[in-house]
Amino acid sequence: MAQGTYVEDDFQRDTTYIEDRITESGAGDREWPVEAGRYRLVVARACPWANRAIIVRRLLGLEDVLSMGICGPTHDEDSWTFDLDEGEVDPVLRIPRLKDAYLERFPDYSRGITVPAVVEVATGKVVTNDFPQMTLDLSGEWSAHHREGAPDLYPEALRDEMDEVMQRVYTEVNNGVYRCGFAGTQSAYEDAYDRLFAALDWLEERLADRRFLMGETITEADVRLFTTLARFDAVYHGHFKANRSKLAEMPVLWAYARDLFQTPGFGDTTDFAHIKSHYYEVHRDINPTGVVPKGPDASVWGTPHGREALGGRPFGDGTPPGPPPAGERVDPLHNPLLGSDGLVHLT
Amino acid sequence: MAQGTYVEDDFQRDTTYIEDRITESGAGDREWPVEAGRYRLVVARACPWANRAIIVRRLLGLEDVLSMGICGPTHDEDSWTFDLDEGEVDPVLRIPRLKDAYLERFPDYSRGITVPAVVEVATGKVVTNDFPQMTLDLSGEWSAHHREGAPDLYPEALRDEMDEVMQRVYTEVNNGVYRCGFAGTQSAYEDAYDRLFAALDWLEERLADRRFLMGETITEADVRLFTTLARFDAVYHGHFKANRSKLAEMPVLWAYARDLFQTPGFGDTTDFAHIKSHYYEVHRDINPTGVVPKGPDASVWGTPHGREALGGRPFGDGTPPGPPPAGERVDPLHNPLLGSDGLVHLT
Repeated sequence: MAQGTYVEDDFQRDTTYIEDRITESGAGDREWPVEAGRYRLVVARACPWANRAIIVRRLLGLEDVLSMGICGPTHDEDSWTFDLDEGEVDPVLRIPRLKDAYLERFPDYSRGITVPAVVEVATGKVVTNDFPQMTLDLSGEWSAHHREGAPDLYPEALRDEMDEVMQRVYTEVNNGVYRCGFAGTQSAYEDAYDRLFAALDWLEERLADRRFLMGETITEADVRLFTTLARFDAVYHGHFKANRSKLAEMPVLWAYARDLFQTPGFGDTTDFAHIKSHYYEVHRDINPTGVVPKGPDASVWGTPHGREALGGRPFGDGTPPGPPPAGERVDPLHNPLLGSDGLVHLT
Repeated sequence: MAQGTYVEDDFQRDTTYIEDRITESGAGDREWPVEAGRYRLVVARACPWANRAIIVRRLLGLEDVLSMGICGPTHDEDSWTFDLDEGEVDPVLRIPRLKDAYLERFPDYSRGITVPAVVEVATGKVVTNDFPQMTLDLSGEWSAHHREGAPDLYPEALRDEMDEVMQRVYTEVNNGVYRCGFAGTQSAYEDAYDRLFAALDWLEERLADRRFLMGETITEADVRLFTTLARFDAVYHGHFKANRSKLAEMPVLWAYARDLFQTPGFGDTTDFAHIKSHYYEVHRDINPTGVVPKGPDASVWGTPHGREALGGRPFGDGTPPGPPPAGERVDPLHNPLLGSDGLVHLT
């Protein structure tokens, strides 16, 4: 479900989530213990908030301990659904709608049915849909299960500055594009547009001499910015009228975005067909025909970015992840840079 | 009024126009004599078909013999209106709606009320709205009234090839963008998109070593292509989903379009505010909120194009027109390249 609504003339995101956490100790009142095989992460490749979790899980190598269910791109009024699976039922949870897991936990649940969500497999109950905490916990709480060479995506020493950067990226960019697209009046839209591009100008400057947002190594902050940038020209530029320029016309951000895209874990989790289908087919209030644009040509994501010249060690003391497991690869028909191994290959 | 409608799943333009002509002899059954001061050209700056007539009239220097009435950008269900004029009435025709001139001639007129239209001032009757013939007649029939140095926009020797080029530009590009935007189904849209970009690829190739469509000198064929290109990134790319790339991402066409834009008669008749307002506010069927995008940044139209290197003589044996008359200048707030003299000035 869309995680927002019109409130007066302005777009307001409903930020009331199920704030339970999965933690190493599992000792708190609303804490669940980390345990291999106990939970299932439910995502939709279309959704930028879910895409964060897909990337972090893959960078950390949690595929074998936290399985993943994938909803189709076009939810209905009611719920995201498992319409891509055989029989349109998730093969592990055995439910057709993500909503069923929410209702299993809260029979009178009335807020949006959002992805990403973590579900306890044995009980079929949703544990959390608190997406900003979820990925940080994959880094901090699931560390005993990380693959060898997993990067440190939330380094202790950087957290204060990183939290500030991520907060600004969230309010101004991640959410800023939605504020443009769902503005109910011309003036709300124009304010949203100015805020969004002011933030992109700030990032253009910040990234001019930094390879990544926090310096020489990829962190959670880059993951969070990337999922919005990956959707920018495909959806936000036209559908949300975020059109001062395309991402491809902002030289620093465009090079930065391609650098990440070409790094294992990023471009190989990007499904342009699902992304476009979701936004253009679901938001009939701003696209009544439901026609999905054929453009833009996504192969430009494979062009040289030149950011190696800035130096840096993308994975710090770690290493990139290998190819994604066979059942989790993005359809190469949905992303022109993907090979049959599920990885990005340059043209 | 929009000059088209949905017919089955496809966009069909109503091409039944009032085919009367204004001719030098005025001798035919449905011919009216050329005469200074007798007629008024009614346009809307937003409309690409009317923009052709604005450009041709200005290139030929017909301002003093054929006056011009300007409708606002957002017609209603009924008619284009003179809402920009004092009292919302055309100062010469003394009517609030263009429709009144159509009804004065045909009391039961039931087709679209389109611009450009030529109205006989004394009787208040519309003479013609046949836009493809109208501009050719400004060249051929009004020649006794052309300014000194007026270019030959429809040279005898080139007509066969030119008619072919203009026909292809019309069906594939001028009308092709509408076919994308008003496609009623995904497959009609995709076919329209493929046709449009195939034609743009053809033009990209044709113009690679020709300064203008017919060679070294500007002709009516360039006027007809220009008015679509001027609207491409501002409207057709997003609103009509013509988004394989922006015009600004097609190197040859983009340089060609800027070359024309920076030539007197072209950029100085381009009103980006009217253009965006028209499409985004009138077509509520594809833009229900009526919100008008703030982007793209139009100042890029003033950047160097480098096409002089191809040689050519833009006005042939003629000369460029001077500044437009004071009452006919585009508001500099609507086009960032315009100076107070109404001409394009480079940044």
